Amino acid sequence: MRWRNCDADLAAVQVVEKNSSDIRFLFAPRSIAVIGASNDTDKIGYKILCNIVSGGYRGEIYPVNPRGGEVLNRTVYKDIEDVSGAVDVASIVIPARFVLDAVVRCARKGVKFVQIITSGFSETGNAEEERKIVAAAREHGMRVLGPNIFGLYSSEVSLNSTFSATGILPGRVAILTQSGALGIALIGKTAVENIGLSAIVSIGNKSDIDEADLLDYLIHHDTTGVILMYVEGVKNGERLIEALMRTTGRKPVVVIKSGRSKRGAQAAASHTGSLAGSDDIFDAIMKQCGVIRADSIEDAFNWCKFLAFTPKPKGNRCVIITNGGGVGVMATDACERYGVDLYDDQAVLKESFEPVVPSFGSTKNPVDLTGGANAKDYDRALTVPTVSPGIDATIALYCETATFESADLVPMIRETYRKHREAEKPVTYAIVGGRAVEDAILTLRRENIPVYGDVYEAVSSLGMLYRYQRSLSDTCDVTDDAVIDVAAIDRIIDGALAENRHFLLAHEGSAVMRAAGVQIPQTRVARSIDQAVEFAEEIGYPLVLKVVSKDILHKSDAGGVALDIVNKEEVMDAYEAVMHNSRAFKPDASIEGVEVCEMAAKGTEIIVGARRDPSFGPIVMCGFGGIYVEVMKDVAFRGFPFNRAEAMKMLKELRSFPLLLGVRGEPRKDIEGLIEAIITVGTVIRKCPRITDIEINPVVVYEQKRGHKAVDSRILITG
Amino acid sequence: MRWRNCDADLAAVQVVEKNSSDIRFLFAPRSIAVIGASNDTDKIGYKILCNIVSGGYRGEIYPVNPRGGEVLNRTVYKDIEDVSGAVDVASIVIPARFVLDAVVRCARKGVKFVQIITSGFSETGNAEEERKIVAAAREHGMRVLGPNIFGLYSSEVSLNSTFSATGILPGRVAILTQSGALGIALIGKTAVENIGLSAIVSIGNKSDIDEADLLDYLIHHDTTGVILMYVEGVKNGERLIEALMRTTGRKPVVVIKSGRSKRGAQAAASHTGSLAGSDDIFDAIMKQCGVIRADSIEDAFNWCKFLAFTPKPKGNRCVIITNGGGVGVMATDACERYGVDLYDDQAVLKESFEPVVPSFGSTKNPVDLTGGANAKDYDRALTVPTVSPGIDATIALYCETATFESADLVPMIRETYRKHREAEKPVTYAIVGGRAVEDAILTLRRENIPVYGDVYEAVSSLGMLYRYQRSLSDTCDVTDDAVIDVAAIDRIIDGALAENRHFLLAHEGSAVMRAAGVQIPQTRVARSIDQAVEFAEEIGYPLVLKVVSKDILHKSDAGGVALDIVNKEEVMDAYEAVMHNSRAFKPDASIEGVEVCEMAAKGTEIIVGARRDPSFGPIVMCGFGGIYVEVMKDVAFRGFPFNRAEAMKMLKELRSFPLLLGVRGEPRKDIEGLIEAIITVGTVIRKCPRITDIEINPVVVYEQKRGHKAVDSRILITG
Repeated sequence: MRWRNCDADLAAVQVVEKNSSDIRFLFAPRSIAVIGASNDTDKIGYKILCNIVSGGYRGEIYPVNPRGGEVLNRTVYKDIEDVSGAVDVASIVIPARFVLDAVVRCARKGVKFVQIITSGFSETGNAEEERKIVAAAREHGMRVLGPNIFGLYSSEVSLNSTFSATGILPGRVAILTQSGALGIALIGKTAVENIGLSAIVSIGNKSDIDEADLLDYLIHHDTTGVILMYVEGVKNGERLIEALMRTTGRKPVVVIKSGRSKRGAQAAASHTGSLAGSDDIFDAIMKQCGVIRADSIEDAFNWCKFLAFTPKPKGNRCVIITNGGGVGVMATDACERYGVDLYDDQAVLKESFEPVVPSFGSTKNPVDLTGGANAKDYDRALTVPTVSPGIDATIALYCETATFESADLVPMIRETYRKHREAEKPVTYAIVGGRAVEDAILTLRRENIPVYGDVYEAVSSLGMLYRYQRSLSDTCDVTDDAVIDVAAIDRIIDGALAENRHFLLAHEGSAVMRAAGVQIPQTRVARSIDQAVEFAEEIGYPLVLKVVSKDILHKSDAGGVALDIVNKEEVMDAYEAVMHNSRAFKPDASIEGVEVCEMAAKGTEIIVGARRDPSFGPIVMCGFGGIYVEVMKDVAFRGFPFNRAEAMKMLKELRSFPLLLGVRGEPRKDIEGLIEAIITVGTVIRKCPRITDIEINPVVVYEQKRGHKAVDSRILITG
Repeated sequence: MRWRNCDADLAAVQVVEKNSSDIRFLFAPRSIAVIGASNDTDKIGYKILCNIVSGGYRGEIYPVNPRGGEVLNRTVYKDIEDVSGAVDVASIVIPARFVLDAVVRCARKGVKFVQIITSGFSETGNAEEERKIVAAAREHGMRVLGPNIFGLYSSEVSLNSTFSATGILPGRVAILTQSGALGIALIGKTAVENIGLSAIVSIGNKSDIDEADLLDYLIHHDTTGVILMYVEGVKNGERLIEALMRTTGRKPVVVIKSGRSKRGAQAAASHTGSLAGSDDIFDAIMKQCGVIRADSIEDAFNWCKFLAFTPKPKGNRCVIITNGGGVGVMATDACERYGVDLYDDQAVLKESFEPVVPSFGSTKNPVDLTGGANAKDYDRALTVPTVSPGIDATIALYCETATFESADLVPMIRETYRKHREAEKPVTYAIVGGRAVEDAILTLRRENIPVYGDVYEAVSSLGMLYRYQRSLSDTCDVTDDAVIDVAAIDRIIDGALAENRHFLLAHEGSAVMRAAGVQIPQTRVARSIDQAVEFAEEIGYPLVLKVVSKDILHKSDAGGVALDIVNKEEVMDAYEAVMHNSRAFKPDASIEGVEVCEMAAKGTEIIVGARRDPSFGPIVMCGFGGIYVEVMKDVAFRGFPFNRAEAMKMLKELRSFPLLLGVRGEPRKDIEGLIEAIITVGTVIRKCPRITDIEINPVVVYEQKRGHKAVDSRILITG
């Protein structure tokens, strides 16, 4: 039956070929070879071929095995190069030591994509062989999926080239998974939940093709309504950010990333890193990209299904309709947790719901139909949102009662769901009760109607739809750059590297700040006591004196810092004390002089930083600064693209943001100036690739238009 | 069949009577009357009688209705007073206007408990009638459950006097619910989940009997293993705290309280309250009582079931056993979230698991059996924890694979669960996959084996068991009091009340602090410029001068405060400026003088407070103080009993606790002194009932043994 439309389908594939990028051949190949096809039903080489055939693939199938013969009534080619027609994809299922040779043959044949099922490469330490495979493939313009994968399913051409899953239901959800075991289990779970799939790709070691490549296809694949990704680690994060941002602009992406806990996270070397744990950065960047992150498989599935089948709300005026006060309050709590706004115009609510709510019920939100409500009452009440232009979404709650005939439950929900679909308004149901209620949940979920046994689950799905909606209007796709003197910064870095240093000294850091245009306290390095006095008089009091020595990193510990210097005499005393202490602390230290610094007035202390993240490339950071950084851990992160609006969003994320707005009658602080400093630090990390870490703590922020002072900067560099 | 043991059971009830408190008659009455018994099958008066009879109640049943006749083949008494035998409980199901009369008759008859099903009392504003009912009952020593309830179920005598639930399965979980609708729905859900119930009580308006009374019975009821409470609001919180603490010492209590969100919470008047929202206080007190709080019904049920059936772990050495790395990492994340410790002794793990893990697997924790593991491999691996004295609990994970025969899944889990039961060690399973896996979950859950479809659910249940275990050794049941001069404080309050003030002036607040023994900066009120100079020289510099006037509350705004006064001349200038500004600010203000205060040196700023909470009575509070209070909202609350150990736990809960330990090489602060201050403030709120709110912000805490200074106190009082 399925083969009937084969010609038409192949014609469609050919049209696709002309208009689209290469990656489409992976998802919609006109032909597939199975290298290692086997008659042994226990072997993966049999299972894959069998799944391709029985899955109803609409293209040519070429079994390949040096032994020849037949498999599943198909002639086996001894070599891929013996195949006369073009081969778009080859699935390789032979032992690891033969894979490179097979890849070379595929490349010579002009195969466009190989999917290497075989394991035993970089995941077991054999990274060299994997590199060779990718190099050989790339030389011929061939791309590699895997190795160490279970295969791929693509509904577009009914291709199931996995070795494990059968009877995959076609549908609107695409799954990209880095874990094989979990991926296979997830396919099974989608079938139970009646979640149809548009594609499932096992990406394994990501030796070549990664999530970003696959997203490029899925963005334009109209059948795919939602993308679910299971991620363990990110390579090439900058590309991933771009791909995710493009994708979420068109369809929702839900990600599960394990390794959230400290136990899993690597101890990052620099301070910014230690604050973060890579998971905080991952989390921040997913938010920035408009990606919805789920912790549990349960949530991820619920959300994907809801996002795939629910119309977008036109506004945020939601109503809760219930027959029990208790669950109504629980739903109200859940709405706050998941960012669902409850409609609050009492007059409109009263007018809309008065005709359908009994006198001892409530037309306030939650609308309470009372325990006496039957199916007809629910039907009338749940029709109100579908016909009221003022209501955008509905949360329907039901506690089992004797008044409501259980046989009426399924029809009532089907009918009110249908009305919401027709009105293009979201609705989510939570129903609580015994066997009849549980059966209703199973029945309705199989029909992809969003019915849950728990109030929080029901509301969370709607919350994710709103979260996605908000991200659509809120994603930053251009970077604001500050004007910085890159050449001057490069010269400072050259100087430090010439001394084999991978950090900048305080006065070098100050010089970088100046070259970047960040406001810093005035500072001069004095080589003598007379010069110190001269600089002090120029800068003005109060002052700080600090020893300058590449051999003394922790200046305070060495007695190398003197604070609160208010006159000439104190400058002279402090100069001598700083020099004396430093020499006593480390007699062989090379001392360049003493830095005479303007002492910054008090203000709101913020930390601003940037670093080159091993996964995501340049990132910026800001937070509650000074001595509270490690304690309060009130920090926000962003990757690029990054602009002023995004910097403002970062600041607003901080619990301490009200300090910048001014608390207890204090005036608003110079937020605009602080944003410029963040943008500048971001520009430096992007334009000076030898800088790996910048941290300014504190940036003291003054009143509006009074600017800020970057008091202490710490910059790490690499050759 | 059930009636066979009736005599023996009644004998047991009679023994109970002699040894126990009254409340047992509510749960194990020897006889029950239904006032309003009816032949009309639609009426509640019929349904309740029918449920009592068909539920197999093992005592005497007396239908009462002025019309007489027969109901369900039983003679109907026209009046309760016509019943010749003793009546322990009467269920009242007649219209609200007749209830008071029925209650009076019951009281005269010597009924011990009435349960008033009827609604239409305080919940609809008719509080007066409810008060009369309780007064009439109390006069005769009779107690009242309700009104506005659906009834009660008690497994002890197979009593189902609810009007809604049938076929209730007896078991180990007791449910107390304030919401009728949700309660009825929950009973249904327990049946589906095969959760047996020992009791279910609808508590409705709590006119007389509340949760604390019912807990008194459930504590000693051996059949009850776990108690689930659904709470909307707390009356008489001090009694509830006591009852909960006694109960959790013997069995776990899980609570769902709705109204967590701001939308539901009342705006509390005082500052402490506004920080809290009553939900924060509820949450803190539940933790203090060792109660486990669930947000969702799903979590509450999962946890109750697990707690009811799982042996207590002997230690916190848990292992994760998995066939997939991905779910292993997810479980590791979940362990961190839910406070489950993972065993980390690599040598022991290696020795224990090496014989059962393939060479390419992992004996580290998570123990990875790899995707090749079959049922036998799982059985061997899951036997290890049951025989290893070094392992206390197991988290077993399974991703569906082709290697593992699905028919083996249920038997494998049954068998390994049995071994864990025998070894008295907890185990929790998360299994992910298709239809076979979902069916296994349904089958095994019906057998009360803890199998979940989601890793986080599986781990959360174990986490709650550990949370309960930890609370057992950790609950504070005695109050530490400070020595305070109550008489002196009372005189200050008298003085303020005599002026019709409900707040204390600054110098009065200081006097209260002195009487309580809280360290405060030295301070004297000067009535003249000469006196100010005299006091200044006595106290020493630097100093602060503040105007003292009951008419000027916001002294800074009035220019009534001068800081940083360092010598005699500045005292004179400041005195004149403060007086001048204050008079200019409010010409008719009555000015008592100028307060000359020691200026507290810098230190770590903490807020310490106490108030009389409308639900829970006296509570104490501490947090990150100074200007950061409202911004960082880093505060902790406690009710009473409250002692030094509990105060230390409060401090440790604060994100800012490391500031007290000393960050960046700073010395440890005087935590002991701070704890004394918290204890003292707690003593004041307990012993001075006219004080409603105390807030000291900041308490500046110095280095260890250097004490602290309570810089600014704000005290509210009531007549």
